[in-house]
Amino acid sequence: MPLVDRVLMGPGPSNPYPEVVAALARPVLGHLDPEFLALLDETCDRLRRVMQTANPLTLPVSGTGSAGMEAGFVNLVRPGDPVVVGVNGLFGERMCEVAGRLGAQVVRVEAPWGEPLDPARVLTAHPAPRIVAVVHAETSTGVRNDVAELGEGKGDALLLVDVVTSLAGIAVDVDGWAVDVAYGGTQKCLGVPPGLAPFTASASARERFVERPSSWYLDMGLIARYVEAPAASGAPARTYHHTAPVSMVYALHAGLGVVLDEGLPSVWARHDECGRLLQDGLEAMGLELVAPKGHRLPELTTVHVPDDLPGGLDEAGVRRRLLERYGIEIGSGAGPMAGRVWRIGCMGHTARPRNVALLLAALGEVLER
Amino acid sequence: MPLVDRVLMGPGPSNPYPEVVAALARPVLGHLDPEFLALLDETCDRLRRVMQTANPLTLPVSGTGSAGMEAGFVNLVRPGDPVVVGVNGLFGERMCEVAGRLGAQVVRVEAPWGEPLDPARVLTAHPAPRIVAVVHAETSTGVRNDVAELGEGKGDALLLVDVVTSLAGIAVDVDGWAVDVAYGGTQKCLGVPPGLAPFTASASARERFVERPSSWYLDMGLIARYVEAPAASGAPARTYHHTAPVSMVYALHAGLGVVLDEGLPSVWARHDECGRLLQDGLEAMGLELVAPKGHRLPELTTVHVPDDLPGGLDEAGVRRRLLERYGIEIGSGAGPMAGRVWRIGCMGHTARPRNVALLLAALGEVLER
Repeated sequence: MPLVDRVLMGPGPSNPYPEVVAALARPVLGHLDPEFLALLDETCDRLRRVMQTANPLTLPVSGTGSAGMEAGFVNLVRPGDPVVVGVNGLFGERMCEVAGRLGAQVVRVEAPWGEPLDPARVLTAHPAPRIVAVVHAETSTGVRNDVAELGEGKGDALLLVDVVTSLAGIAVDVDGWAVDVAYGGTQKCLGVPPGLAPFTASASARERFVERPSSWYLDMGLIARYVEAPAASGAPARTYHHTAPVSMVYALHAGLGVVLDEGLPSVWARHDECGRLLQDGLEAMGLELVAPKGHRLPELTTVHVPDDLPGGLDEAGVRRRLLERYGIEIGSGAGPMAGRVWRIGCMGHTARPRNVALLLAALGEVLER
Repeated sequence: MPLVDRVLMGPGPSNPYPEVVAALARPVLGHLDPEFLALLDETCDRLRRVMQTANPLTLPVSGTGSAGMEAGFVNLVRPGDPVVVGVNGLFGERMCEVAGRLGAQVVRVEAPWGEPLDPARVLTAHPAPRIVAVVHAETSTGVRNDVAELGEGKGDALLLVDVVTSLAGIAVDVDGWAVDVAYGGTQKCLGVPPGLAPFTASASARERFVERPSSWYLDMGLIARYVEAPAASGAPARTYHHTAPVSMVYALHAGLGVVLDEGLPSVWARHDECGRLLQDGLEAMGLELVAPKGHRLPELTTVHVPDDLPGGLDEAGVRRRLLERYGIEIGSGAGPMAGRVWRIGCMGHTARPRNVALLLAALGEVLER
């Protein structure tokens, strides 16, 4: 098969950083090799810095972002537990589905797709929830939900937050916001291919882990015995759980290195600038953005498909033209927004002014604007 | 961190094929890109050929081999279902644990570690099991369990087989043996880094999938809607489930390509020859093999640690010497065999006479034999 390369401006994956591509080809090591364990430890340290947490239990789950979501719920939910979920997009819906399958009493707090959640409503939806769960950056709508207020008002509940599309794109402050469990994905603002889910859990969450979750593969208590470094004084005492996906860990290690070398504030500023350039450019073209100002993600922009497409083109035709003529991928709408919006990502290595300029030029040509 | 390379002769991962390393660096594509979907379809076709099955539902699960095990059980087990598990090593034990967490009534049929299961005992352990589950190649002991007889005698039960360490190392004939669900790993005889679990399910298994398994991430009914190609006549109708781990899929695609280009009989013969060379060499050195002749895996050899180690060396010291002086990884014993055996793998790209010659020479030097 011929090799095809794309400028990846959909809702993820983004283009990986060159350092990440190089790291994928590192020689494979055994999952118990001291050299690999040192690299894994460094990866977890880097994750702590990017997630802004001191949680010892911080590691990459061996699956995609959705495995991170499932790991969060499966280690915390007992049948009948009240779980409040903020729902204003596809990934809030998915949280309800995942928690529901585990027997949770799911309490939905909705906002229309394209609008942010009201934190006060989330906090008062149930008198004593075991978990309050929200998506920080809704990949389906480009909306940012506020997390800090939920941490302040959560009471005895555990706060579980999806940071898949926010991590390393906008500020994510796990400890500062009193988040108990957060999970991300590698293929968005971290600039790493999909395949791992950065995961962190607070001491409070850990104390309340269910003893024998229905999933063995995602049992964080067991996985911690492999991932957590032994006390400096003792001999190595890692307990094998499953074979770590070493090449993807190399890739994540490298992506985190790029982000930390650039510095988090600078990485956020780059995503912010690209988002503004893109959103200003789309509006200058006469297009209408979906997410309201103030809750608009810079890294993922949702824009209404205009009514007056050039002759012969429909929504999918525009995307196909971008893909085939320019090698640019943008995303379609999800769920109720299918056919009505485009989702344009500018994440990770893709988040550069040159890609914004290219996308605006190409889209302008296709739309004849 | 400096790059360290190893000759990987433990129980996995093995060294990846050069074509696989190159494939990891292929440009990342979106999980809905037509070019990626074509490659995914080809990967599933190649999996069917290597697993020797015509099952439409044949795909790589987005997790390591253990995720494949969990996917098998979570889609089939309802609370209270009788599940017969053959247990003669760590991975049979793991099957009991995974099935037990899902509420199965687990019926264990044991053989001592290091000996094969008796198929007749497995088949008569319960009058009407929903599932009969065995590990084809026990990675913990180097023993091969017979599968064909289980397929012949399974009756109404579904036959679930772990082929993690057998696939592409020795013959695995899913359809010929009437296996209903099989799962593998990429990091053994396929010569691909760890991270995906090849998975297949028969039509009978599929008909009996539980409707809403407790795991959303591993719900094969949902995943099939994304992976299975739409009917040739219709328009593409893939339903997004989770973001496919594209770079690992590239790697698997390439590894399967290497195996199929060489030809399965030739790949099996290569593993067989290397296993015999290794086992003969170890015996010539005066060491004693664990697995009995006739049920000895060529790709994974378990050997007793001799009593008369050279001064100052213990079991772990021998492995450390091999790792530090020669850059060769071999494995320790698992479970009750810890400290008493070594596990020496010769799988995938590692399965070459040159690596056997090297291992025998290096081990001979370390053991002074």
